Amino acid sequence: MGNHMGWLRAAVAIAAATAAIPAAAQFAKPEDAIKYRQSVMTVMGSHLGRIAAVVKGERPYVPGDVQVDASLIETLSKLPFDAYGPGTDKGAKTRALPEIWSNPAKFRSRAEDMQKTATALNAAARTGRLDTVKPAFSDVAKACKACHDDFRQE
Amino acid sequence: MGNHMGWLRAAVAIAAATAAIPAAAQFAKPEDAIKYRQSVMTVMGSHLGRIAAVVKGERPYVPGDVQVDASLIETLSKLPFDAYGPGTDKGAKTRALPEIWSNPAKFRSRAEDMQKTATALNAAARTGRLDTVKPAFSDVAKACKACHDDFRQE
Repeated sequence: MGNHMGWLRAAVAIAAATAAIPAAAQFAKPEDAIKYRQSVMTVMGSHLGRIAAVVKGERPYVPGDVQVDASLIETLSKLPFDAYGPGTDKGAKTRALPEIWSNPAKFRSRAEDMQKTATALNAAARTGRLDTVKPAFSDVAKACKACHDDFRQE
Repeated sequence: MGNHMGWLRAAVAIAAATAAIPAAAQFAKPEDAIKYRQSVMTVMGSHLGRIAAVVKGERPYVPGDVQVDASLIETLSKLPFDAYGPGTDKGAKTRALPEIWSNPAKFRSRAEDMQKTATALNAAARTGRLDTVKPAFSDVAKACKACHDDFRQE
């Protein structure tokens, strides 16, 4: 099923390349961007938590469930980072640290690391093998933590 | 590209049919379910708003952008309704009305109407024709409103 998400990735790439309007302009107010990115993280975190419970043996491994979760996580992983535009460091309660805007290259790199691990997790989920899912999930968890350590208030 | 999302729908159906654990059990606490469904709605609303701006002529029509938005909306449309399980009528601030739990058949019907219109919007977006997107978007907006009128506090 590797190619089935390909068109979405391609569409996202095309959209990113052709959009005449900066992505940040998608949000009328900074608080909208903050709420959006937090909401994406909440949904992503919920589905990561479902896979975590399987990886930890707290829930039975149902390959189809993990595939749905991992597919959603990959899709959602593309969304938050356009919502950290200039001026979105305040306007609503946020744990986003100023380093996001003072070191954007590092932030982008961390974001891309997470996205790559999310793509790999989705591929791993499609194998239907828990022993393949486990290390891929661990990589996502590490990528989340690395970014949160540097860019999210404790 | 009509079949490209088919595997996800199939996977969701399989997951729903085979899951040994009730979907509501995915949430440790009612507040987690409430936050999850609100977050999904926020993200869905943001992407609906982007298409709304195009439909209203406030933004140029970039077919690839609308396709990405519509695809996300269809994916997200599947998510919220497992998060209205028993006991999730309170536990955090929520505008969910008691009728969700006293008239679940009607709520489910409204949810399915929205999901069908979201699927149709995604198909319409793939035509790359704004005159096809416009009525499909209008149908989604009507389905959202119909459910909110009955089941969401003003």
